[in-house]
Amino acid sequence: MTDPFVVVGGDAAGMSAASKAKREDPDREVVVFEMGEWVSYGACGLPYYVKGEIQSLEALVSVTPEEFREDRDIDLRTGHEVVQIDTDARTVTAEHESGTVVQPYDHLLIATGSAAVIPPIDGTDRDGVFTLGSMSDGKELREYVARARGGESLQQPDRGPACRYLENCTGPVGVVGGGYIGIEMAEALAENGFEVHLFQRGDRVLKGFSEETSEHVADHLEEQDVVLHLGAEVQAVSGGKRVGAVVTASERIDVEMVLLGTGVRPRTALAERAGIDLGETGAIATDAYRETNVPDVYAAGDCAESTHVVTGEPAYVPLALTANRHGRAVGETVTGRPSKGGDIAGTAAVKAFDVEAARTGIVDHDAAREAGFDPVSETVTAKSRAGYYPEGGTITITLTADRDSGRVLGASLASEYGEGAVHRSHAVVAALEERATVSDVENYDLAYAPPFNSTWDPVLVAAKVLSGTLQESTD
Amino acid sequence: MTDPFVVVGGDAAGMSAASKAKREDPDREVVVFEMGEWVSYGACGLPYYVKGEIQSLEALVSVTPEEFREDRDIDLRTGHEVVQIDTDARTVTAEHESGTVVQPYDHLLIATGSAAVIPPIDGTDRDGVFTLGSMSDGKELREYVARARGGESLQQPDRGPACRYLENCTGPVGVVGGGYIGIEMAEALAENGFEVHLFQRGDRVLKGFSEETSEHVADHLEEQDVVLHLGAEVQAVSGGKRVGAVVTASERIDVEMVLLGTGVRPRTALAERAGIDLGETGAIATDAYRETNVPDVYAAGDCAESTHVVTGEPAYVPLALTANRHGRAVGETVTGRPSKGGDIAGTAAVKAFDVEAARTGIVDHDAAREAGFDPVSETVTAKSRAGYYPEGGTITITLTADRDSGRVLGASLASEYGEGAVHRSHAVVAALEERATVSDVENYDLAYAPPFNSTWDPVLVAAKVLSGTLQESTD
Repeated sequence: MTDPFVVVGGDAAGMSAASKAKREDPDREVVVFEMGEWVSYGACGLPYYVKGEIQSLEALVSVTPEEFREDRDIDLRTGHEVVQIDTDARTVTAEHESGTVVQPYDHLLIATGSAAVIPPIDGTDRDGVFTLGSMSDGKELREYVARARGGESLQQPDRGPACRYLENCTGPVGVVGGGYIGIEMAEALAENGFEVHLFQRGDRVLKGFSEETSEHVADHLEEQDVVLHLGAEVQAVSGGKRVGAVVTASERIDVEMVLLGTGVRPRTALAERAGIDLGETGAIATDAYRETNVPDVYAAGDCAESTHVVTGEPAYVPLALTANRHGRAVGETVTGRPSKGGDIAGTAAVKAFDVEAARTGIVDHDAAREAGFDPVSETVTAKSRAGYYPEGGTITITLTADRDSGRVLGASLASEYGEGAVHRSHAVVAALEERATVSDVENYDLAYAPPFNSTWDPVLVAAKVLSGTLQESTD
Repeated sequence: MTDPFVVVGGDAAGMSAASKAKREDPDREVVVFEMGEWVSYGACGLPYYVKGEIQSLEALVSVTPEEFREDRDIDLRTGHEVVQIDTDARTVTAEHESGTVVQPYDHLLIATGSAAVIPPIDGTDRDGVFTLGSMSDGKELREYVARARGGESLQQPDRGPACRYLENCTGPVGVVGGGYIGIEMAEALAENGFEVHLFQRGDRVLKGFSEETSEHVADHLEEQDVVLHLGAEVQAVSGGKRVGAVVTASERIDVEMVLLGTGVRPRTALAERAGIDLGETGAIATDAYRETNVPDVYAAGDCAESTHVVTGEPAYVPLALTANRHGRAVGETVTGRPSKGGDIAGTAAVKAFDVEAARTGIVDHDAAREAGFDPVSETVTAKSRAGYYPEGGTITITLTADRDSGRVLGASLASEYGEGAVHRSHAVVAALEERATVSDVENYDLAYAPPFNSTWDPVLVAAKVLSGTLQESTD
């Protein structure tokens, strides 16, 4: 009898792999070691839990540990921290409060995920400084918000002043970082009545999106009374035992709490100690099947790098779908059906109050040139539904293509929430993945009816305009 | 100096061609003959005008005749009916109230559109029997609805009983045909307080969609108190001078008015008289550049057939985007940049009260087999947003692929209105057009965030399930 398929880490990649392996081969023994108590949780939902739109952390869990154990017959061991991988002996060593376990493996998946980046500045250890990566982070933040609101319901926040119940409350709160987490948490806090100061080191929020999308979102954040501090590198979080202010080169803003939304880094220490190679991005390197440099040892999810579908180069974009997809592919591979699970396009979506935005592929011209392309972009603003239809708004799309080949490289879109910027991006993702040209996209026979779009959907309008620009440049 | 580019018909295809030709070559003389007074109007908006959500017919016009003449320098002659094309002399003959014009052409575009089909039954000439194809149809229907409501505002219909102000009003109204027009008009009439009876010859509405989509929409129509008569071929519209009842083989339903939504047929008489070939669909046959069998004579829009992107065969799917796209391509071709304008996928979208639905490609298994495929379909129902997110509904997707190649052939989707069935279809259209396989689609890196979808968007869930079925059938 072979040794089991062992998985280190019980979140998206790990549990997808374990579940798929069991479905493909019910006789295969599958052991999962998870350091914490929570598995398979939707960390992406945490901002909405903190905001008060989701009432329990349990709601974020798609499958409980008991269900994994009983319904899926997975030997899931929570509270087990894997401290060593011996790739020669083909074992992992895990520590548990009751002792140490040495577990042999036949195939191993490292799915150790990512950790929030703590910027190297003074004061991040003061009370009242939070990150948002884990369920316990979410719990602490929600408790903080609830205290600040003095037990008022969070479910239907009224935007009244928050923080009025805390002793010595200084009112405002600081969010460091203008990425997804920063923006989603700015919304969660502002909707609970906090005065929110958002600090962004660069000159715009959502730097992976187009400048037009960044501006669109920034304008809306300001409309919602979020105070934006752009080009503001935070130098320290000052205060006493508790945080008192955020200090930048030019300002000192008094705050009652600070949320650090400054990105994540892959958890690679365990893999590195076992002699597993990291890639140029700093995450674990794998081949197209997620196998590392050590045979039968795989890595997937937030700890591993992927290949970018447009550039063909390694990329580190730790997001939930990739973790699910690659974990699932590993589960197939180790049970006898080699599966790649696909490349990534760096696709992402975010809701910011009443605005939605999405991006995919390569939008930044420097990044495109570095990948060997000659990028051309056009930005169009078009109605989201037929002009005469009583409802609707506008969508702004930046579409980027390679001048010579006409190949679509990426897109960035923004609209009012509900007007479809995010779901419009799906067509562009498909085009990217299929290496379509702008003139291919221009001729896509997309669905049309007045309650949904104009005859030429905004995606087609963007393709028409960009196609015209490409033609002019070759005429 | 060359003779002008002459266009017959001033709606989507004709005005797109004329406008594009002028943009490409401002010196080119462009003459458009339009039989009526309206040009470039959004007929797709007529149901919403009748419903009362759009306040004027003018709102449906994207560019006015004056703007075409003055801003775009197009010689637009409304009220001119072209009665003859002489392809040897390269002239068209048009009649106008002031006389007859013989106009030479260098290139000619036939864009004569379509006409509502009047089923060959007794009584369709009675008063109170309407079709909905032209602006004047829309005007008459709106006047009828307004009279029935006795001058009450149509803008915010309250679903109170309509038809209470008309003399001898029998109350109910009949809609014949369960396609887009039939369903949109059922909504328009029901929302104005009419008791609506919808008669469908076949056993389900929206026959081009999947059975699951048809059922989804039918159930919702019934929830909205539309009385569905399925498998009910209408044999006569009985009554006196005015319509009094719809008669089927098994029933006689008293009605006050009847709307015929029984499809359209291409207007081809003028072309046929000029010796221009029709295709197997009964519409004008063209090559990939929309050129007919007669050199320099093009046909585009609702009078012409297209090539289906999945089957590669001629297809007649008269819809607005195709007319725009093909008209525009002809405008480019006749000014020196040969353009195909792309194939069609038979993509369509419809709103039915609080439900939205879309379809694309080949969904019907008989049609797929006829085109040489071995079709396999799966239908999944998935949440439209993250399961824990406070808003959201469900999307039901039927995805169809070819067993051997795995190629995606088509899809049919339905959801609550606003939950994204229609915009989800865009990714499938792109996949079809790029000849992607189901396992390609399964690995698309689609945008994800909890306010928009689950980690695996419903499109990906459908692809995963169908991919599994295809694998089983080859294992």
